[in-house]
Amino acid sequence: MSDKVTPRILPGFAEFLPKEQILFNSIYDKIRNIYEKYGFLPIDTPTIELSEVLLAKAGGETEKQIYRFTKGDNDLSLRFDLTVPLARYVSQHEPNLVFPFKRYHISKVFRGERPQKGRFREFYQCDIDIIGAEELPLVYDAEIPAVICDVFKEINLGDFTIRLNNRKILGGFFSSIGLSDKTADVLRVIDKLEKIGEDGVTKELTEVGADEETISKILAFVGISGTTDEILEKLSALGIEDETFVQGVYELSEVVRYMRAFNIPEKNFAIDLTIARGLDYYTGTVYETMLNDYKKLGSVCSGGRYENLTGFYTDKKMPGIGISIGLTRLFSQLLDAGIISAENASLAKVLVIPMDKDALPFALSTASKFRSEGIATDVYLCEKGMKQKMKYADRLGIPFAAIIGETEMQNGVVSLKNMREKAEQLTLTPEEAIQILK
Amino acid sequence: MSDKVTPRILPGFAEFLPKEQILFNSIYDKIRNIYEKYGFLPIDTPTIELSEVLLAKAGGETEKQIYRFTKGDNDLSLRFDLTVPLARYVSQHEPNLVFPFKRYHISKVFRGERPQKGRFREFYQCDIDIIGAEELPLVYDAEIPAVICDVFKEINLGDFTIRLNNRKILGGFFSSIGLSDKTADVLRVIDKLEKIGEDGVTKELTEVGADEETISKILAFVGISGTTDEILEKLSALGIEDETFVQGVYELSEVVRYMRAFNIPEKNFAIDLTIARGLDYYTGTVYETMLNDYKKLGSVCSGGRYENLTGFYTDKKMPGIGISIGLTRLFSQLLDAGIISAENASLAKVLVIPMDKDALPFALSTASKFRSEGIATDVYLCEKGMKQKMKYADRLGIPFAAIIGETEMQNGVVSLKNMREKAEQLTLTPEEAIQILK
Repeated sequence: MSDKVTPRILPGFAEFLPKEQILFNSIYDKIRNIYEKYGFLPIDTPTIELSEVLLAKAGGETEKQIYRFTKGDNDLSLRFDLTVPLARYVSQHEPNLVFPFKRYHISKVFRGERPQKGRFREFYQCDIDIIGAEELPLVYDAEIPAVICDVFKEINLGDFTIRLNNRKILGGFFSSIGLSDKTADVLRVIDKLEKIGEDGVTKELTEVGADEETISKILAFVGISGTTDEILEKLSALGIEDETFVQGVYELSEVVRYMRAFNIPEKNFAIDLTIARGLDYYTGTVYETMLNDYKKLGSVCSGGRYENLTGFYTDKKMPGIGISIGLTRLFSQLLDAGIISAENASLAKVLVIPMDKDALPFALSTASKFRSEGIATDVYLCEKGMKQKMKYADRLGIPFAAIIGETEMQNGVVSLKNMREKAEQLTLTPEEAIQILK
Repeated sequence: MSDKVTPRILPGFAEFLPKEQILFNSIYDKIRNIYEKYGFLPIDTPTIELSEVLLAKAGGETEKQIYRFTKGDNDLSLRFDLTVPLARYVSQHEPNLVFPFKRYHISKVFRGERPQKGRFREFYQCDIDIIGAEELPLVYDAEIPAVICDVFKEINLGDFTIRLNNRKILGGFFSSIGLSDKTADVLRVIDKLEKIGEDGVTKELTEVGADEETISKILAFVGISGTTDEILEKLSALGIEDETFVQGVYELSEVVRYMRAFNIPEKNFAIDLTIARGLDYYTGTVYETMLNDYKKLGSVCSGGRYENLTGFYTDKKMPGIGISIGLTRLFSQLLDAGIISAENASLAKVLVIPMDKDALPFALSTASKFRSEGIATDVYLCEKGMKQKMKYADRLGIPFAAIIGETEMQNGVVSLKNMREKAEQLTLTPEEAIQILK
């Protein structure tokens, strides 16, 4: 009988083997690097916050998912997104921040949902937001997709489309057909168009209380198609005089114009009038991003503009715009679908192998030379047979082995073996080896 | 009356302004980079684990500090260090890992202590460990300080000393003077020598039950001084025949010999027989690291060798060696003491400023050129006066402003202003500007 505890983690929590982690980190780094290149500033907020502060706005489904507990006299919660901590951060530190405040935040969030495939209870979000003091010009609505465009070019998952809409267009349209009191309900239904089809939407709209004529107007409206410019023209040509609608069409046109000024390729964006985003707080531009070769994954990067981020903490009006990549989910989906593979993921470029103890000093000084040239270098320091030493490099996916025995020491050289090709070993000076490893 | 919630975080939790965060991240990146250069593999474990698994080993003080709670049927805890999750990870994934398993883990840990200056309830640890299957050669005890040496050279906080000892020397010595049943107590007292002095130690050792003669032997022993080689000679010359003692002296000599093979400069390490490390699980080499110009900070990087990491989860013996940097604490201390300053911390190298809307396309294409050369570039997109635009760059600490108005557009140039010097603006092509910004 063993008194050992079975080592395990909870369902719904992600944990990767080292090679997968290397691949995960490489995507993480690419996202971070692009965010920084655009001048976004890093912040890092506590994982644990006071429930009173963190849940000022929450309710319903969100609140049920919170990891909430007491410690001493404190009612505490783990953050469930990076937006509420941002609102709290901006309100708290406002005098010390520079506006427009462009921040990125890449960190874990926690949601105690029922675990299911592709859903995690603890996962990384990669957020950027731009917060204005009192106002934020529309041109920033075009900077966000410019960043996203560079991110997905860098991650290199094939063609992608940033789908755009404006909540004012939808809201104004519904108002114009007399459904403004049901805008939220109708938006929620339309958001499902791709999932449940026209029939499903018709059924649910009927339940909401729309008559047949209204439903057909709605379906015709969200079905407007064509090039970006054609859609904008068709929207104007509808002749709807609702102020919100007119403002929405104006904003969308402006954002498109600015996106072109940002040189975002036409193939990487498209207006899609069916996008509403489920959340209630978006008030203008909304985005979703589709990987065109892997549409099954759904939107991999979503967000939009909101009128007031900080209403629960301060009277100052803080409009903003932001977007989020759910990295843990995206990464797991890409891995499971075989779109990316961690098989050859290795940070170390070379494994230095001293043949015996006498070779150690020369092996270590060679490793040191490699590292000083920026080459990540591991050294195998156990006294094992050559087969086992090579197996270590092979299993770790390290692309080169630099073998150092008596002959190599005497001649001040290394025997460099390419682990992925069946080629001959090369006898090289450390300097020559550096050229190849680089 | 306002119904607003006061935005605030809990005492004992760290949160930095963006400039400080940039500085924090730059140190984080340097540590990570050195860890990776030595072939350490990244892992990232869940923040939340099952209490049964995480607390298999814990007890007493540690257990009181745990953030522990239930969610549904699960008894959960936040990790309080990165060592227990490592033990769990290695036991769980053992068939898929390659040994010796060299892993780094940089992440937050959580301890609900009473908050006090320099102590945090949520903080980053930067750990490396090397785990052997059944055995791990002594040479790895020298690789760890080689990594630490490179880390502190890179962080650049002046001279530092890695202090070394071996728990077997202490244990064997106490056994030789008939105190082996009180080794743990005596070690705990000796660990405080620097804090409470010889008198304090004498008093506490008397309480533990040591007589005057024994105490003077202990103080003479831990007072052995000299160069590294002199200390090793004096230890051998004591003529103590206790097996554990002899083994400890042998191990320490070997580790020193290997450290020299790793080319660790003599000035960066020293034997210190007073180091015991409070934790019970170290069984061989132990380390502490002192910044010689800031000794008040205490040890900034500590660790050692342990015989069996995974005893609570598996029968397989897994010896290892590791070290940890408490980054949040170190960073806060350095900042508070004025040793480092975030005043000029900026990721963006340049702020592109379009004078008006007409200048936008040229400004954006210039920013794009800068970024494609790897230059982090922010663009100011609000319509404000020039003074306010410059103030944005100034407050963010961005070192250059590239101003683009009608004249610049017509001539395809930018006016580049060095924000930190009072020099004249330079009129440059984007390509010339890139040379300066790089």
